[in-house]
Amino acid sequence: MDQKLQQYIEKLNGLDFKNMYNGDFFLTWEKTDDEISAVFTVADALRHLREQNISTRIFDSGLGISIFRDNSTRTRFSFASACNLLGLKSQDLDEGKSQIAHGETVRETANMVSFMADAIGIRDDMYIGKGNKYMRDVVDAVTAGYKAGVLEQKPTLVNLQCDIDHPTQCMADMLHIIHTFGGAENLKGKKIAMTWAYSPSYGKPLSVPQGVIGLMTRFGMDVVLAHPDGYDVMQDTIAVAEKNAAASGGSFRKTNSMEDAFKDADIVYPKSWAPYAAMEKRTDLYAKGDFDGIDRLEKELLAQNALHKDWCCTEEMMSLTKDGKALYLHCLPADINDVSCKDGEVAASVFDRYRDPLYKEASFKPYIIAAMIFLAKQKDAAGTLKALAENNIPRHFC
Amino acid sequence: MDQKLQQYIEKLNGLDFKNMYNGDFFLTWEKTDDEISAVFTVADALRHLREQNISTRIFDSGLGISIFRDNSTRTRFSFASACNLLGLKSQDLDEGKSQIAHGETVRETANMVSFMADAIGIRDDMYIGKGNKYMRDVVDAVTAGYKAGVLEQKPTLVNLQCDIDHPTQCMADMLHIIHTFGGAENLKGKKIAMTWAYSPSYGKPLSVPQGVIGLMTRFGMDVVLAHPDGYDVMQDTIAVAEKNAAASGGSFRKTNSMEDAFKDADIVYPKSWAPYAAMEKRTDLYAKGDFDGIDRLEKELLAQNALHKDWCCTEEMMSLTKDGKALYLHCLPADINDVSCKDGEVAASVFDRYRDPLYKEASFKPYIIAAMIFLAKQKDAAGTLKALAENNIPRHFC
Amino acid sequence: MDQKLQQYIEKLNGLDFKNMYNGDFFLTWEKTDDEISAVFTVADALRHLREQNISTRIFDSGLGISIFRDNSTRTRFSFASACNLLGLKSQDLDEGKSQIAHGETVRETANMVSFMADAIGIRDDMYIGKGNKYMRDVVDAVTAGYKAGVLEQKPTLVNLQCDIDHPTQCMADMLHIIHTFGGAENLKGKKIAMTWAYSPSYGKPLSVPQGVIGLMTRFGMDVVLAHPDGYDVMQDTIAVAEKNAAASGGSFRKTNSMEDAFKDADIVYPKSWAPYAAMEKRTDLYAKGDFDGIDRLEKELLAQNALHKDWCCTEEMMSLTKDGKALYLHCLPADINDVSCKDGEVAASVFDRYRDPLYKEASFKPYIIAAMIFLAKQKDAAGTLKALAENNIPRHFC
Repeated sequence: MDQKLQQYIEKLNGLDFKNMYNGDFFLTWEKTDDEISAVFTVADALRHLREQNISTRIFDSGLGISIFRDNSTRTRFSFASACNLLGLKSQDLDEGKSQIAHGETVRETANMVSFMADAIGIRDDMYIGKGNKYMRDVVDAVTAGYKAGVLEQKPTLVNLQCDIDHPTQCMADMLHIIHTFGGAENLKGKKIAMTWAYSPSYGKPLSVPQGVIGLMTRFGMDVVLAHPDGYDVMQDTIAVAEKNAAASGGSFRKTNSMEDAFKDADIVYPKSWAPYAAMEKRTDLYAKGDFDGIDRLEKELLAQNALHKDWCCTEEMMSLTKDGKALYLHCLPADINDVSCKDGEVAASVFDRYRDPLYKEASFKPYIIAAMIFLAKQKDAAGTLKALAENNIPRHFC
Repeated sequence: MDQKLQQYIEKLNGLDFKNMYNGDFFLTWEKTDDEISAVFTVADALRHLREQNISTRIFDSGLGISIFRDNSTRTRFSFASACNLLGLKSQDLDEGKSQIAHGETVRETANMVSFMADAIGIRDDMYIGKGNKYMRDVVDAVTAGYKAGVLEQKPTLVNLQCDIDHPTQCMADMLHIIHTFGGAENLKGKKIAMTWAYSPSYGKPLSVPQGVIGLMTRFGMDVVLAHPDGYDVMQDTIAVAEKNAAASGGSFRKTNSMEDAFKDADIVYPKSWAPYAAMEKRTDLYAKGDFDGIDRLEKELLAQNALHKDWCCTEEMMSLTKDGKALYLHCLPADINDVSCKDGEVAASVFDRYRDPLYKEASFKPYIIAAMIFLAKQKDAAGTLKALAENNIPRHFC
Repeated sequence: MDQKLQQYIEKLNGLDFKNMYNGDFFLTWEKTDDEISAVFTVADALRHLREQNISTRIFDSGLGISIFRDNSTRTRFSFASACNLLGLKSQDLDEGKSQIAHGETVRETANMVSFMADAIGIRDDMYIGKGNKYMRDVVDAVTAGYKAGVLEQKPTLVNLQCDIDHPTQCMADMLHIIHTFGGAENLKGKKIAMTWAYSPSYGKPLSVPQGVIGLMTRFGMDVVLAHPDGYDVMQDTIAVAEKNAAASGGSFRKTNSMEDAFKDADIVYPKSWAPYAAMEKRTDLYAKGDFDGIDRLEKELLAQNALHKDWCCTEEMMSLTKDGKALYLHCLPADINDVSCKDGEVAASVFDRYRDPLYKEASFKPYIIAAMIFLAKQKDAAGTLKALAENNIPRHFC
């Protein structure tokens, strides 16, 4: 076993994450600091093993079920990659995008697809109050099925994006920050700006800004959430951010000025989203089947967005950041000026300069997902990593 | 090797199922009692091995092709699970649902997708006289391909539901009965009621009632088929049921009274289906492209159904059964009163009480499918099970 | 290790194909004779190992991404089979068929799906000047991603059909020829006729005739390209064919007479395609969004086709060939007279007689694809084959 893996294992040995075993991953703020740290450590360890061409398969067979209630190429591939890395076969459940399933159906379907499922990944971010609830219904269903002897194992749920949080994205973003700054211990006092940015499209999910302020406030950083007046995120996540910041010795504040947020920032995350209140309204309209109302709301929101085209991550804006060199983050795909649209979230020259780091940021996601599954499945995660290294089965026989 | 597996192996050693090797699974009544028993035994053994965390992969690589000519989440997952359990990668062939393929196309496509296929699962239950025929065409095609040296192996066909039978469903149902009653030897003289039930939907397949009377009559039970006048099933399957009942020392009879069927029943299977004659008519209309005629037929059938809303598995109906506690079966999803529809096949309170057993019933299907493939692929099935146990490769490395 | 495998390994030891390592497969004429020969040899060796029930998995985990910009059952299954044979999990990227992706999107998507991808197979044959270009963009993107540390490996690209060439098809065809004639060394002086044939459908891709004349001219054969006046293929591929023929000691010529081409031919490949000039025009119309223009063009082409119904591989035409017994090739599916259409590419009796060889021809494709991936991934291909044989892990445990 090499030194680097040894360090990961020692790190894990100092953490308490025993409650993750047989658990699920809904929201980062339901996890302790040790548990969050365990996910990062296992993600790094799995990546390290793969880079050393050592197989990380802990399953000889088994399924990973994915349920996407919104189009998703990238998340689909991230989940499929994570499953494959651990030896699970990913299998899509395509329920049709439009329906919001009812209790009985959820309960039954969740069990019917899970007879051999070790993991379930769900993306359901379209309607306020629905996505996270749906995931919990699925977990309740398979837990009951497991207890009743219907399922031989309880599949672990990984939240691949809901109406509240986007834990796999934000943790990939965070792991990228940690690597960029040489360790979580170097983040105290660093300033990160999670800011709204203009996009010509409508109704982008809130889970990224909410997830970012819910997670990034745990590392002693100064977290600033910036958006035009009226683009508030879910109030509960503000409360989470405030509590986290107080506990971590960092800070959290809101501003309506992108310049204020960017000023001396070490990290910037400019990204469009829809106002929480508007998304709530949209969910109500949808529940009523009021599609004319939805159309009207969309037009209003696009008009409102268009008032804020100055919220763009331009070179001028970047020059306000620490040494003009803040780390630029995005969950991708970004709306790039004169590339994917006329006016968007970011200037092409800024995006170009950060392309490699952005792709690297994204590359952590499959490992974060795999680590979440791994920690729910392995009673002795450190021991398993050690055994994988010692068994030394090549991933690619060459 | 533990005692339980030892018992399964001894059981297999007393059975003659050598003709299943390199064979296919079209209809249960084409199989001998020993062969049916071998499927149950291997299914139990595979499940037992998996529960002991022992890998049951007999394939290091290879494909399992699935062809679904009707929407199917559950069967799709059952087949994918069975393939995964044995080490095959399931691969969907999506031909488009509406077309009824012609001879040349079937022959060619069957070979083109089977170069590395060890199994093919087909669901084709929409048109009378077509589904089972199509499966046999596929088998003829790949058999010819194998003999000509085109294919390195002859994939085994598993009927995942046709116009005549639904062997994987009915054998999963039956294995659930066997487990519930503590063994097939305890079923002599038990009464099972396969009865029609009201549903607000139209044209539900006949393969379940036909498959049930074709299989359940083999165990010395008293099998009653109940339906309103005019909801007859395929006559050939009645003949099969009568012959089986005579041979097994049980009985088979038809009735037009749900009460008569439920009276003192040990097992009840209330489920909607369309009249065979109407489905034949529908197939003809479809062949002629008479879509107005199909619409008219649909309306007639719905109106006819609506005359029989009293055919519902209510608490009152259940109270007629043996000690009021008959085992309630359904292939799922059921039409549940005031849950999935206003009036349906079963009262919510009945369904609720049997939910766990119903899910358990469904959980046998992947193992039944896997057992069918296993018996077609392993010349020495008992020896393979023994070797798997001795090799003791963990399914989940933990 | 058996004698046959020993021969394949010795053959490989005499070839120089070191530049294939970490490479890609775009066009056959970019490969040296030794490299082409290495693909054939590895394909034969992989097939031989599989026939001996020896696992050829060189990957314990990893993905093979497939991108199909046109419907494709057969190619999809060939790629999935090849991936499975090597231990990769095939994963479809379904981008939507109609869009021609832009640079930024291609670059980003290619990386986002490739974090754990060892191979990418692309079929993009619809628009002149686009398909091959797109493949190169993808390779540029993942190469940059690999160099930047975003990807842990550079996936190898396999061209599953583009606007210029169809290397996996033509090499499968060629390997079938080689086997039929008992070795490449027996092909000198053999006559092969790549001829146009009538089809009632419109716009069939040019990649097959172009690929065939680009590849088959390398073996010292007399290659004749026959088509009605106006059905010219891409001029660049004519130049390739002429150069190849000169270098190999064979010949290449064009004719407007099917009879001329068939006369004394040892091999015939009658198949419909659209004129290159028309396809260029169509691409321009598409770029302009001129769908009326596209409709008009289609009608013109169908009318033009209909003037050449006599270009059919009838028994009379076959009787012109060497001893009336030329090897008949087709990439399938063929338009068969009175079977798939009234007038088509081939008479039913001819097709029937060659059905088994045609299926056999197709059966080489998964092995060709696997060989291309294998040679890009294994530094010591011969050594790996030897090791696989010695490890002797059964593909099917029986």
